[in-house]
Amino acid sequence: MACEGSLADSIDWPVKAVLWVGGPDGLLELIDQRRLPHELVRLRCTDVAQVCQAIGQMAVRGAPAIGVSAAFGLVLAAQSAQGCDLKTGMRMISEAADRLIGTRPTAVNLSWAVRRILRRAETFLASRPQAGMADILDAIFQEARSIWQEDIDACLGIGLRGCHLIEEGMGVLTHCNAGALATAGQGTALSIIYQAHKAGRSFTVYVDETRPLLQGARLTAWELAQAKIRTVVICDNMAGWLMKQGKVQMVLTGADRIAANGDAANKIGTYTLAVLAARHKVPFYIAAPLSTFDPSIASGCEIPIETRPVEEIRQIHGKDLIPAVVELWNPAFDVTEAALITGIITEAGIIRRPNASRIAAFFDRLVSIRPRRP
Amino acid sequence: MACEGSLADSIDWPVKAVLWVGGPDGLLELIDQRRLPHELVRLRCTDVAQVCQAIGQMAVRGAPAIGVSAAFGLVLAAQSAQGCDLKTGMRMISEAADRLIGTRPTAVNLSWAVRRILRRAETFLASRPQAGMADILDAIFQEARSIWQEDIDACLGIGLRGCHLIEEGMGVLTHCNAGALATAGQGTALSIIYQAHKAGRSFTVYVDETRPLLQGARLTAWELAQAKIRTVVICDNMAGWLMKQGKVQMVLTGADRIAANGDAANKIGTYTLAVLAARHKVPFYIAAPLSTFDPSIASGCEIPIETRPVEEIRQIHGKDLIPAVVELWNPAFDVTEAALITGIITEAGIIRRPNASRIAAFFDRLVSIRPRRP
Repeated sequence: MACEGSLADSIDWPVKAVLWVGGPDGLLELIDQRRLPHELVRLRCTDVAQVCQAIGQMAVRGAPAIGVSAAFGLVLAAQSAQGCDLKTGMRMISEAADRLIGTRPTAVNLSWAVRRILRRAETFLASRPQAGMADILDAIFQEARSIWQEDIDACLGIGLRGCHLIEEGMGVLTHCNAGALATAGQGTALSIIYQAHKAGRSFTVYVDETRPLLQGARLTAWELAQAKIRTVVICDNMAGWLMKQGKVQMVLTGADRIAANGDAANKIGTYTLAVLAARHKVPFYIAAPLSTFDPSIASGCEIPIETRPVEEIRQIHGKDLIPAVVELWNPAFDVTEAALITGIITEAGIIRRPNASRIAAFFDRLVSIRPRRP
Repeated sequence: MACEGSLADSIDWPVKAVLWVGGPDGLLELIDQRRLPHELVRLRCTDVAQVCQAIGQMAVRGAPAIGVSAAFGLVLAAQSAQGCDLKTGMRMISEAADRLIGTRPTAVNLSWAVRRILRRAETFLASRPQAGMADILDAIFQEARSIWQEDIDACLGIGLRGCHLIEEGMGVLTHCNAGALATAGQGTALSIIYQAHKAGRSFTVYVDETRPLLQGARLTAWELAQAKIRTVVICDNMAGWLMKQGKVQMVLTGADRIAANGDAANKIGTYTLAVLAARHKVPFYIAAPLSTFDPSIASGCEIPIETRPVEEIRQIHGKDLIPAVVELWNPAFDVTEAALITGIITEAGIIRRPNASRIAAFFDRLVSIRPRRP
């Protein structure tokens, strides 16, 4: 089942977190999400080092958005390699790819996008042995544009596939930001919310503020306010009590990597929500594009979990809050086991009660319909 | 079972959150906990309005500490009533009692202490019909001093009764601040930690930062750093993942009110920890003095839950973070049902697997030993 909406609607969406300006010789424009909601500032990246910095410092964040950004990062690397011989140029691109992949370990969309670009360059070269770096740049640019466009389409697809799950009067709890700011399109989890809203249904979105970087309070609340959807922000530690009050009928988050068995990494705190949802018999859904699946790993145990600088926690209100002798722990993600997940909503449909065999069957069906698999 | 320690040790404890300076004509001195850890500032309260403000604005917080503060607040009210006739003076005290009880609704220690003082004044008057307001002041002062001293003793008792539960090498997760700053003595949950540390055991205390007012990061981390106990602060949303990593062998918090059936109100987020602990088969203990029990209510459903100003969440980093159109929800407490509680550690012993009959039996046994019941 799907709600009305078209690709044009999603392209008209006012927030463009990741945008390429111009042709193959263009540049990457990112909204600097560290400065939201106080300022809407766009960063212009003209070399790959700037893209690495933007991803590492979380000026751009969200699994699909950093995948698309990294793809365009390789366009910038290919620009820098213009004038080099093919061997040197390809080595420069390959080194840029390694640097991009090294910026953040957990979201698989990043390495997926980078590897897809490299594969494209290699396939292109194999079919056109006489090609020069200008041709490589063109090919990489086309592939990055495809990744960008596919992400926009995937966002809309997720929204259309999932929006019937949100019924009139529901309370939907989300965590972190899985919205337009986290993607090239209109988001993953929030895309579903936007489509349900567009379909005319009234409901309340509860948003965890999402410490330490407050993506829920800063980004999701800002997005939902623009979309005029009733939003209530809570502190992360209030989610259990909110469910106990019967206010939540659905938990809906994004994901950064989904293993072959359905275990899903997402922003720290997601696992706790899944445990609470199970206890309160509230459905727990994950919304993610196919590019977030990592069939190369069997289970969530193999997902690398990024540990971020402890200053993100220690410095509250602009100064050190916690004595230096006190340690801190700042894992950026956690893993929710598949058994706690009611369904994974993708652009190609919903995988209900995900496990290894259901996910494999889902992808097998996709392959039989369309030749390419993520 | 109990660890070594004496009342003298607890009185030597450096942090005195609630202190009376002088005799019946003295004043109340409170550490202004809003300014910790950056500044150790003492507030001097010389009238009951100042005490009400200190409690309402959480300059002093923690169920036992606000109970003791309110008791001394009535000493200040009795001071103001000097020179009045008995009827006027008693009415002034009674009005002050109502104002004190009205400052914060959840912790029962507050109304318990205030009612105990009123009862003492009434009993005193009944036995001394010719008494004047100076005699009433003396009687109230003695009773307030008793409440203060009993709280110090109860803290130590809780520590001695519970410290054997913390074994060498354990990870103990706590929430908010149930330490010296929350009591007149050395704390409730933290008293157990201090006594276990004093007994020579090495262990790690994980502290939830405890949004929105960050009592864990600001107060508990500060206390534990002074006590030189290994401490790791985490964001509230990391507790589930921490347990999943096998780092937590015990969850230990305070309480603000415990119903006759063992349901316990405590700082928002405690219920979530109890759910997570149950899932991970980690024991979940509450530490609280007998004054935190409210035998007048059958279950946690009857505990009034304070909702605090939403600005506590909205204003992060000193400015409004969340658009004004976005709502917020700021419940200050939640209720953990008794079935999730492994044990309640009091100064008179541990109530294991609390329920209505076990708690009633526990208090009946106390009454048979000592005539007064809280």
